[in-house]
Amino acid sequence: MQDFALDDRLANDSVSVTITGLCDVRLMKDCRWPWLLLVPRRPGISEIFDLTPLDQVLLTFETNKVGAALKTVTGATKINIGALGNIVRQLHVHVIARFEGDTNWPGPIWGHGRAEPYADEDMNSFIAKLRETLSQ
Amino acid sequence: MQDFALDDRLANDSVSVTITGLCDVRLMKDCRWPWLLLVPRRPGISEIFDLTPLDQVLLTFETNKVGAALKTVTGATKINIGALGNIVRQLHVHVIARFEGDTNWPGPIWGHGRAEPYADEDMNSFIAKLRETLSQ
Repeated sequence: MQDFALDDRLANDSVSVTITGLCDVRLMKDCRWPWLLLVPRRPGISEIFDLTPLDQVLLTFETNKVGAALKTVTGATKINIGALGNIVRQLHVHVIARFEGDTNWPGPIWGHGRAEPYADEDMNSFIAKLRETLSQ
Repeated sequence: MQDFALDDRLANDSVSVTITGLCDVRLMKDCRWPWLLLVPRRPGISEIFDLTPLDQVLLTFETNKVGAALKTVTGATKINIGALGNIVRQLHVHVIARFEGDTNWPGPIWGHGRAEPYADEDMNSFIAKLRETLSQ
């Protein structure tokens, strides 16, 4: 059986926050928006509907738990959730906190401009808050 | 108890294809991409995680059934799924068939240019194919 291995581009663009039942939950290295990824740790999957029904349910509950936590931590106006995969085919679900007037509001975040890195202390404190809220 | 009523903008921009257990499945009036919406028929919901756990599971299975059907009917390279809601707050899930080289590929479809209407016969035959595949 093929082992799961994280796509190189996803690994480079994000850092792991926590492992849930199915997913590696990762923070994108882009401070323009609070932006998380859930990567189901299953090999060879590109589309959500290629997961087993049980994994589809796990992904839904984990995505929604992460979305609710991100809204709590950030006070976002709206959570955006998306699975595109036009560039990186390994299945990954984006969960992004959006605010009125943020970069490219009310348009989508994907493909817009260039990533802006976090200061180390900002990234570390944000990850700590996310871990605390996700563990509740 | 509040009744469900479809948002005016969603009603204007799309036509109903079928009703599933939870959702109104609708075709966007934009022939640039084969583009469906699932609108859970629950009042007052903006975020997926505000649905009950059972409705979250229904939405997942219905979204994935629609996504798989859309891939079958169109032969798409990749299915894009997204719940943004920055403009229309009533919860709605986009399911879009994408092809290499289509309009704005590999970027997202939301907020890009202006809708291009279908010819009536093209829309009707596409809806008929979708209904047939979804009923299997």
